[in-house]
Amino acid sequence: MNSHSSEDVDEYASDNDASSVPLLRDENVFDKKPARKMDAEPSLSNFKVLYVLTQLCGLTMIALVGSWIGAHMGGLGGTDNPSLEFNWHPLLMTIGLIFLYGNSILVYRGFRNMRKKTLKLAHASIHMGAFILTVIALKTVFDSHNLAKPDPIPNMYSLHSWLGLSAVIIFSMQYVAGFVAFLVPGMKESFKIALMPLHVYFGLFGFVLAIASALMGLTEKAIFAKLYPELLSSGAMANMCGVLFVVFGGLVVYLATESTYKRKPLPEDTVLLTGASN
Amino acid sequence: MNSHSSEDVDEYASDNDASSVPLLRDENVFDKKPARKMDAEPSLSNFKVLYVLTQLCGLTMIALVGSWIGAHMGGLGGTDNPSLEFNWHPLLMTIGLIFLYGNSILVYRGFRNMRKKTLKLAHASIHMGAFILTVIALKTVFDSHNLAKPDPIPNMYSLHSWLGLSAVIIFSMQYVAGFVAFLVPGMKESFKIALMPLHVYFGLFGFVLAIASALMGLTEKAIFAKLYPELLSSGAMANMCGVLFVVFGGLVVYLATESTYKRKPLPEDTVLLTGASN
Repeated sequence: MNSHSSEDVDEYASDNDASSVPLLRDENVFDKKPARKMDAEPSLSNFKVLYVLTQLCGLTMIALVGSWIGAHMGGLGGTDNPSLEFNWHPLLMTIGLIFLYGNSILVYRGFRNMRKKTLKLAHASIHMGAFILTVIALKTVFDSHNLAKPDPIPNMYSLHSWLGLSAVIIFSMQYVAGFVAFLVPGMKESFKIALMPLHVYFGLFGFVLAIASALMGLTEKAIFAKLYPELLSSGAMANMCGVLFVVFGGLVVYLATESTYKRKPLPEDTVLLTGASN
Repeated sequence: MNSHSSEDVDEYASDNDASSVPLLRDENVFDKKPARKMDAEPSLSNFKVLYVLTQLCGLTMIALVGSWIGAHMGGLGGTDNPSLEFNWHPLLMTIGLIFLYGNSILVYRGFRNMRKKTLKLAHASIHMGAFILTVIALKTVFDSHNLAKPDPIPNMYSLHSWLGLSAVIIFSMQYVAGFVAFLVPGMKESFKIALMPLHVYFGLFGFVLAIASALMGLTEKAIFAKLYPELLSSGAMANMCGVLFVVFGGLVVYLATESTYKRKPLPEDTVLLTGASN
């Protein structure tokens, strides 16, 4: 019945619980073939091309946001210059809550020949990097409001702030729930199975919401900084950043959800079939 | 290999081509059970609850956008009052490019006991309604810029306009491609199979992009109309519209992608197995 759960759980399945055996009934873990290599499957050569494209798009996106801040927004500054301290906010959010968040989602499929346990630790570590940058990015925007002269700027009034903070809260709750359920040993397998589709759905939901929030943030900044409506190069550059956010997001979601790109368990992952410790 | 294609195609499969038989190898179309009813499967009672919630959310979203326009934006007007003519833009886009677009996506799963052919025609018809409202909504915003006094307002300068128009273009191309491939008889089955995952992906991509564009549109309007940064009730109401857009979008995407909610072919749909005309 619950094909969604079983389909997704083997992507993240526990490495240490024999009760997860039924999850693997559709997988070829018993066959005699060597570990799959990306090159062996035609659909995975498409995956590789799109994966490289995603990385190029993501790096271009970061470079363009950085260039826009440097060329048109006055560069970066500290707490003594709140309007320039603000500029850390879009830069760190782009790196953390978009680029790293997306890459952490893709790590299982991008590095499919690595062991499941290693991938789970990489997933948690990249997300932790994203979380730290996000917290700093939040501090700089609150600073830029609270320290503004002559008067502080109110906080949390805009749709960008409401939905952006929602994305951060969803991200954080996902981190705690995912850590407890899938990394800390001893969680009941039935609980993991029930949680996995929600973890996958809300992971992608938070990622897309973060991108939508970035688009609103660019819109706000472009209007407040009077980059519109003449469509100066500064405004066109902000718009191009937004277009890259959308393309990056579209590629990440596609690579993470296309079923033919799904990581299949390696022979090394099949310790879960015997319940052996590792 | 291409499990994604076969998984999705039976949602939309042709009713008149015997060559689609292999697509149905995993379906229970040969069994002797009567047509499935929603109540017969526990997971579908969840679907029903969420589907009703989605509709309530969508109708509330339209009512709130309408109320916001009426209470705070001056209501609706014709070409003699461009700033009020503008207000048709958010209202018609909310009804067309968000509510109807989402409902057209959900029609296969929401009315799963109807015949596939009927559902395909409903899908195309609801999308046509969405398209007509979208074209009128585009006309009103261009009017409100071009007819503005004393000077016209430039067009297509903002990220909202770039991405919003992209969503409309993706929507329109999807309509043409979907109509030719899945409604006009005679298209090769292999072509349909290849197109279906792209149709599903870009359908959802365009829908999410439309919602992201609506969020940017609300942000723009709230700033231009000076609803920020005091967070007056007018600004809070705009923000609440945005929150409802996100919840509606999240529900639609979940209901459309959760595999346990997938529509399964009815016995009446199995004429495709015999190649019989209907």
